[in-house]
Amino acid sequence: MECNKDRIRLDIETIAGFNSTPGQGTTRFTYSDEDIKAREYLIKEMERTGLKVSVDQMGNIRARLDGKDDSLPIVMTGSHIDTVTNGGNFDGVAGVSAGLEALRTLVENKFQPECSIELIVFVEEEGPNFKFPLAGSRILTGKFPVSSLKKHFNSKGVSMHDAAVARGFDPSDMRRHLFKEGEIKAMIELHIEQSVVLDELSVPVGVVGAVAGRKWIEIEIAGKSNHAGATPMNFRNDPMDGAAKVIASLRDIVTESANPTTVGTVGKIDCFPNEPNVIPEKVCFTVDVRDIEKDGIEIVERELIELTEETCEKHGLEFSSRVLSETEPIIFSKKVVESIIESAKDKCIEYIEMNSGALHDSCLMAEITDVGMIFVPSVGGRSHCAEETTDYEDIKKGADVLLGALIKISEA
Amino acid sequence: MECNKDRIRLDIETIAGFNSTPGQGTTRFTYSDEDIKAREYLIKEMERTGLKVSVDQMGNIRARLDGKDDSLPIVMTGSHIDTVTNGGNFDGVAGVSAGLEALRTLVENKFQPECSIELIVFVEEEGPNFKFPLAGSRILTGKFPVSSLKKHFNSKGVSMHDAAVARGFDPSDMRRHLFKEGEIKAMIELHIEQSVVLDELSVPVGVVGAVAGRKWIEIEIAGKSNHAGATPMNFRNDPMDGAAKVIASLRDIVTESANPTTVGTVGKIDCFPNEPNVIPEKVCFTVDVRDIEKDGIEIVERELIELTEETCEKHGLEFSSRVLSETEPIIFSKKVVESIIESAKDKCIEYIEMNSGALHDSCLMAEITDVGMIFVPSVGGRSHCAEETTDYEDIKKGADVLLGALIKISEA
Repeated sequence: MECNKDRIRLDIETIAGFNSTPGQGTTRFTYSDEDIKAREYLIKEMERTGLKVSVDQMGNIRARLDGKDDSLPIVMTGSHIDTVTNGGNFDGVAGVSAGLEALRTLVENKFQPECSIELIVFVEEEGPNFKFPLAGSRILTGKFPVSSLKKHFNSKGVSMHDAAVARGFDPSDMRRHLFKEGEIKAMIELHIEQSVVLDELSVPVGVVGAVAGRKWIEIEIAGKSNHAGATPMNFRNDPMDGAAKVIASLRDIVTESANPTTVGTVGKIDCFPNEPNVIPEKVCFTVDVRDIEKDGIEIVERELIELTEETCEKHGLEFSSRVLSETEPIIFSKKVVESIIESAKDKCIEYIEMNSGALHDSCLMAEITDVGMIFVPSVGGRSHCAEETTDYEDIKKGADVLLGALIKISEA
Repeated sequence: MECNKDRIRLDIETIAGFNSTPGQGTTRFTYSDEDIKAREYLIKEMERTGLKVSVDQMGNIRARLDGKDDSLPIVMTGSHIDTVTNGGNFDGVAGVSAGLEALRTLVENKFQPECSIELIVFVEEEGPNFKFPLAGSRILTGKFPVSSLKKHFNSKGVSMHDAAVARGFDPSDMRRHLFKEGEIKAMIELHIEQSVVLDELSVPVGVVGAVAGRKWIEIEIAGKSNHAGATPMNFRNDPMDGAAKVIASLRDIVTESANPTTVGTVGKIDCFPNEPNVIPEKVCFTVDVRDIEKDGIEIVERELIELTEETCEKHGLEFSSRVLSETEPIIFSKKVVESIIESAKDKCIEYIEMNSGALHDSCLMAEITDVGMIFVPSVGGRSHCAEETTDYEDIKKGADVLLGALIKISEA
């Protein structure tokens, strides 16, 4: 049995067409018109394949291929279809399409697995819309109560709950859809690597053993707003100057004080009132720190806050910091990882074992079941941007490895 | 003859009530509902005083007290009523109210000056709405063609021209309103200092001899957008890192390389796409550099661009820079400055001679007539912010000095 590259390409290119920012990367927010159209395409394709499709009351899609014994715990695969703002066409969608293609291939070959195999499409993985990343997997795994949908709002002030209702979902009836204990035997997610390792080594498959933990810290530095022309330099308390000094040191803190696996990023900065001729009142920025070793994150956070404190002390500024979100590093299931490796070996597909710097729905799944992940190369290591690309041949190889691993685990 | 503090206070407090951001400083954009209401109040007050009011086809208001010889060149005073975003109640309005109060005092005392004296209220001095600072004085003095109103847009994409038309003005008929050669004998603008000097020295009046030149430079640094978690530090081309390193050095460049009178500010920064978990594609910021000596501005610009070049070279980034706007330092009229000083001496009001770091409509006027300015203290040196305050007693003293100087010049 072998997956079909052209069908994978058709899925990905079709979904790429549902984009609210054509020409500026791909933007497909949860519950947007583009999202609804992508869902319609996928559901139609799942049904055409003969899968049993169900959509829960926040919009997560599940498509089942019945196993010989329908009462056994299921094996799951899947990913997401939402994007960051001005993102790419492969993040999430590659895994959804590879999972769908694996099931299509099984059906085509009239192969009935031992237990049922399900494809899942999680809602709101990226989180730019409602600032609630991994919302689907967090709620399905019971990590967050359904009521948390009421606490996350999009830029128009609409809660994720209300946006779901506007699309015909009924989150108040969501509880019965949560994953049940013993329901899922294992989960394998295929995803683009979002880094340069596979591309640099020209290896089509990465077998992921661990996922870095992540901390989002928000730092707000406040000074005295004043006229940019009339305030002598020695009378200034300029929060932009302070913020720049802190942000400019992040790279050194990460590379010199933490681990080789630690990364740190300031991706968002907001200045108030943001006028060229006004010394700002305050500057607010986020720091995203990740590592597969927890101490790497702790070192960066500690040194960064110390530096912020010193800088503010020196320049007459005030600051506050808060942790916006935090996840622990995750070590995946040895059993699932080995099934993936065996599948790759069976099919003579070259692979390496590696870690993930990015967080995925599978990380939530790892708290309730055995999980593994398959990475496929990101050309130039680029992702979350318009240039995000993966060779369809590599996705096909990843899907083949996934297909073999799903069968192995269903039989184990 | 003495100005009336309570009438000044009433003007300023009434206009302060026309504010689109109550509780977050004062925002009164040109052609906004608040602006229209403030104009209505002023025009009513001018007419009640017995002044001859005319409004030109872009909204500049002129109110004339006829002199004994109406054919002589006029003496002018005035300022503006628009604000920056989340600005204060005194910038511009103090000068409009002091000028109005000076004319009210003349009328009240049945004093007819030798030549006519006019109060002017310039449109769009600050420029946050249409990004066209000093629009009124630039067009009235012929420095910019009337057609430039079509080239400046607000955040909704409406041109200043179209916004004026929507308020009933007809800019196509504006040319006949431009200042004529020999029309204006002199101009004196009262304005808040917007810095700490008068407040620190507890002196109510500053007689301004020169205004700093200003350059707005926009620098855009571009890198490679990528996933914040999955991209190892040594594979990054992070424009936020580069921008922060440049901005963090601005203070040292200004204070160590340029003049004691040089100031430099980054008041605006925009990051794209501005998401916590995305290494930015590009970061764009403005640098506002000012000095009464032109070389101070040139030194800062040169060193800043050199540093940006080095930083981008080192971190694999690309940059572009452009000058958004530029004004030369301006030396005011010795004759007008001396009239102001004599007026202060006559009234035994304490004053100092000083320079201005901020640009005003008077700087444009200085190209066509003799100009002087009177500063009144900004409490704590603060301006362009909610906390912007001037003691009404100080504005009254400034208005008294203005009144005396207007008479002196009308008689000279």
